[in-house]
Amino acid sequence: MNTDELRTRFLEYLAENRFTQEPQGLYDPINYILKIGGKRMRPVMLLLACRMFKDDIEDALPAAFAVEVFHNFTLLHDDIMDDAPLRRGKATVHEKYDINTAILSGDVMMIYAYEYLAKSPSHLIPQLLNILNRVAIGVCEGQQYDINFETAENVELAEYMHMIEYKTAVLLAGAMEMGARIGGADESDAQHVYNFGRDIGIAFQLQDDILDTFGDPAKFGKKVGGDIAQNKKTFLTIKTLELADTTDAETLHQLMQTIPNDEAAKIQKVKDLYQKYNIRSIAEKEMNTYLEKALRHLDAVTVTDNRKTEIRELARYLISREV
Amino acid sequence: MNTDELRTRFLEYLAENRFTQEPQGLYDPINYILKIGGKRMRPVMLLLACRMFKDDIEDALPAAFAVEVFHNFTLLHDDIMDDAPLRRGKATVHEKYDINTAILSGDVMMIYAYEYLAKSPSHLIPQLLNILNRVAIGVCEGQQYDINFETAENVELAEYMHMIEYKTAVLLAGAMEMGARIGGADESDAQHVYNFGRDIGIAFQLQDDILDTFGDPAKFGKKVGGDIAQNKKTFLTIKTLELADTTDAETLHQLMQTIPNDEAAKIQKVKDLYQKYNIRSIAEKEMNTYLEKALRHLDAVTVTDNRKTEIRELARYLISREV
Repeated sequence: MNTDELRTRFLEYLAENRFTQEPQGLYDPINYILKIGGKRMRPVMLLLACRMFKDDIEDALPAAFAVEVFHNFTLLHDDIMDDAPLRRGKATVHEKYDINTAILSGDVMMIYAYEYLAKSPSHLIPQLLNILNRVAIGVCEGQQYDINFETAENVELAEYMHMIEYKTAVLLAGAMEMGARIGGADESDAQHVYNFGRDIGIAFQLQDDILDTFGDPAKFGKKVGGDIAQNKKTFLTIKTLELADTTDAETLHQLMQTIPNDEAAKIQKVKDLYQKYNIRSIAEKEMNTYLEKALRHLDAVTVTDNRKTEIRELARYLISREV
Repeated sequence: MNTDELRTRFLEYLAENRFTQEPQGLYDPINYILKIGGKRMRPVMLLLACRMFKDDIEDALPAAFAVEVFHNFTLLHDDIMDDAPLRRGKATVHEKYDINTAILSGDVMMIYAYEYLAKSPSHLIPQLLNILNRVAIGVCEGQQYDINFETAENVELAEYMHMIEYKTAVLLAGAMEMGARIGGADESDAQHVYNFGRDIGIAFQLQDDILDTFGDPAKFGKKVGGDIAQNKKTFLTIKTLELADTTDAETLHQLMQTIPNDEAAKIQKVKDLYQKYNIRSIAEKEMNTYLEKALRHLDAVTVTDNRKTEIRELARYLISREV
């Protein structure tokens, strides 16, 4: 099975496992959020990680579903916290239904993540449970740091990198580790797969930061310049503040405290500062560093190289994406 | 160890397992809610269930902690949904901090419930995980039914009993089943212990309904008459509507749609209707039926009777409580 076939198999499993039980008020929002899609990156990477070690990936489907449901639970709650009206171009759950629904349906999704994890081969359950617990706690901690950063006077680059590792990367890493373990990976291989997922996840988030400011408006799904408009602290702003002279740093600080009438002018001013300090290429270099780190972990996995081809291609594709 | 000693041991474990890690914004609210207390009914019953089968209850402490943390997670989120300002006489987490904090700290508490469950003896983990998943899903479904009932035109008594079983009773039941299994109970004994906990839990909730209307204001922690004032559908209202003639049923329906200036007068009118249909004694009879059912399940457990004494006493005490 190649990547597309794995994704198709996962989407089949997703369709077979729709939440048709009562009460509808609790379960309909789950079907809604799961249906509006996304790239299914985490479950597909989990299945790819399994398939590096074993041809038959059927045993890994419940864990792949668990990870996708867990990820979507975090979207429900994050969207409440961010007061976000749209997700993947559609109304968020708290907009379509209400906040209480988004809280409670989110809660039960998290439990279903564990419920599906428990359908994995039973001798692996204690191990898989530990992985999910560890990364789930990391995701919540990452979200808390992200919230803290909104009101923080100053955020160090190291703090930012730590935040995105937790908020974004560890879930992908944990998903891949689960896949590897279900495939039969030993301790050392499983650790390399985890590290691969973590480093790809960080690279992916850096790419997200870059695209949000420098993406092609015709291709990028969200509004280009959205992070700047919302005064979001990203790799780009933090690195600029680190490199800029006092005057430029002060200018950027000021810009990041305003919500101006002329949004386009503000975005352009910030982009001019980025250009002055060559931030785009610094960010791309950093992203490539993480990609290279990830690929070295993949190299270290003790399976024949042809079993790594698809995962390597998908990683490169994810980082070179324009959407 | 008697009941008080088990509670003391649990409180020690709770104190040893304070959440001292970073980020504080995520973990402080957890320490806050866990510190303001409550009866610790679920963990104590879990430990008592374990001790029916085994003298040493140390192995059951992580699961007891897991259940207490899970229960408190539901309080954080329920209090947001109910817009409740107070919990156990103190500010609720979303009041003391904010809604986003109560959402996110609640989320991570749920994960820590699983994290602590995973510290149980490893051969029991798949089984304990299934119990927690099952009851946790039940709790969310019960909460959704409770929300549905707020706007429902008519709620049948059977629907109400199903709701309180899920929202309140299954967590106690699951906690006790976990304790029994950690103590070494076989399948049949574990099932009887679960059923005991479920029936005691239902009796406990019926007692709650009764106390809310007929409790002694000097002893009852919450405002007596609160359910009536808030037009809450309880065993008392639903049973009255079932028994009342058309005129009285219509009167009660009307009363339950008003938020009058003179709250005391409304409460008195509803209580008069209850009295006309003898509702208090019907509710007490129903509660005692569940207590008796519970005790029959306890009788069926295959351990010597002196190992059941404390659990039986605690059950009777919980049902005869005035607070």
